[in-house]
Amino acid sequence: VLFERCAVVGVGLIGGSLAWAARRAGTVGEVVGVGRSEANLATARRMGIVDRTTTELAAIGPVDLAVLAVPVRSTAAIAQALRPHLKAGTVVTDVGSVKGAIVESLEPICLPDCPFVGTHPIAGSERSGAAAAQADLFEGSRCVVTPTAQTDADAQRRIEDLWRGVGAEIVVMSAEQHDRTLAWTSHLVHAISYALAKSAGDNVADLVGFAGPSLRDATRVAASSPALWRDIFFSNTAAVLDTIDGFQAELQGLRDAIESGDEAELMKRLDRAGAARALIEKRR
Amino acid sequence: VLFERCAVVGVGLIGGSLAWAARRAGTVGEVVGVGRSEANLATARRMGIVDRTTTELAAIGPVDLAVLAVPVRSTAAIAQALRPHLKAGTVVTDVGSVKGAIVESLEPICLPDCPFVGTHPIAGSERSGAAAAQADLFEGSRCVVTPTAQTDADAQRRIEDLWRGVGAEIVVMSAEQHDRTLAWTSHLVHAISYALAKSAGDNVADLVGFAGPSLRDATRVAASSPALWRDIFFSNTAAVLDTIDGFQAELQGLRDAIESGDEAELMKRLDRAGAARALIEKRR
Repeated sequence: VLFERCAVVGVGLIGGSLAWAARRAGTVGEVVGVGRSEANLATARRMGIVDRTTTELAAIGPVDLAVLAVPVRSTAAIAQALRPHLKAGTVVTDVGSVKGAIVESLEPICLPDCPFVGTHPIAGSERSGAAAAQADLFEGSRCVVTPTAQTDADAQRRIEDLWRGVGAEIVVMSAEQHDRTLAWTSHLVHAISYALAKSAGDNVADLVGFAGPSLRDATRVAASSPALWRDIFFSNTAAVLDTIDGFQAELQGLRDAIESGDEAELMKRLDRAGAARALIEKRR
Repeated sequence: VLFERCAVVGVGLIGGSLAWAARRAGTVGEVVGVGRSEANLATARRMGIVDRTTTELAAIGPVDLAVLAVPVRSTAAIAQALRPHLKAGTVVTDVGSVKGAIVESLEPICLPDCPFVGTHPIAGSERSGAAAAQADLFEGSRCVVTPTAQTDADAQRRIEDLWRGVGAEIVVMSAEQHDRTLAWTSHLVHAISYALAKSAGDNVADLVGFAGPSLRDATRVAASSPALWRDIFFSNTAAVLDTIDGFQAELQGLRDAIESGDEAELMKRLDRAGAARALIEKRR
């Protein structure tokens, strides 16, 4: 057992899946789930994701690990509210999709008494809430860990073991590198998916009838929680804007090749896209 | 039996699936598969998709139906080459993703002796070749039929029955309306998918490691045949350019809301995207 008593704040898709998987793996002892919605907590209890639940941060009791699994821009405020209820030595971790802003704001809140380790499991779906949790969500996935010069080495090792225990492969990188990489592989993808769903909806009268498999797959993540993605876009702004600009330039290049009838240029772009797609598919 | 003897030119994902499904449904008698690749034809024979195959259009014998299931810009040339081998009364149909350019070029080739009916089944995947064919590909799908003032009513009825027999729902519309609608729901989606795969590939060093489920789904169709999509982009150019422009304006609006920190505007766009996505998902 890596952590005897744990609190998971935010028993949703990620927090719920981690609690469930770690309990099954035996790497954690008792897990208390914390959330605002009693209905969601009841679902978590019914599914057997956590041992007990509470809507009050003050009621978690002494814990060895606190997992913050809440929307990115709520993380600092919740850490602040949670801090008085943590004993010295409690390891604090988060699972946010943006790391720079979170690591920067959480270290001053947690350190020096409570070691903080930022993580981001690269897994998930467009669904949310405890009902969407899966005990095998992280099997075969990657988890990025973003230590700083101030990170406690022992706490980092235990957090890495926690993720390995639920089936993830650990990748260590800086928060900045994480945010630039994920802007391309995830944040941009969500921006595109939202923009595509909206523009198709604004322009096609009978969307229900004409949506084929390509549109369905390309807009799947447009069903994701708007509040969650607003937070991510606003917390990784510079990188997200860069990737949107880079993508727009690429799409414009493809558009220009179509307009000018430049068959060689178009084929070169489509072929390179296909090669990149083969790499994207590889891990599956 | 709607058509006793049939030729399917192009025994790939769509042509192969139609031949297979129609033979199983009993709406066609003997089907001869025509293609350039003997290896692909051997696959089709081995899978039981067609009764016999040939690489020569001249060798098909007299047929009651000729299905053209080849890349969009090859359709007219193949129809021209096929025409001398068709008896009067042979119904000619195609399954191309673009209808305006095909209908316009095929009617003069086929009429008046051979009735022509343009169709487009809204089904498929990023895979190609006979090996990708599925006998149930069209179950629960839609098939668009695009008659003109010159279309033979009896031929149209039989073609519609052929598609109904393989599980498709028929939607009749003009070729122009089809091309505008499909530009939004399919052609644009493929352009975006190619551009996203290429720009992610150009900017992410370890794409294999960092591709998550959102990027995988959004780039699935970037694995589609480049030659096939080059043809579609070049055959529905005006509508494709319009949809790329409309999408880029939408993405730019989302980008501007992120850059300016306009939370209300961003949420409005994400919420409307989610509503459109719900319609897209509905039919599944």
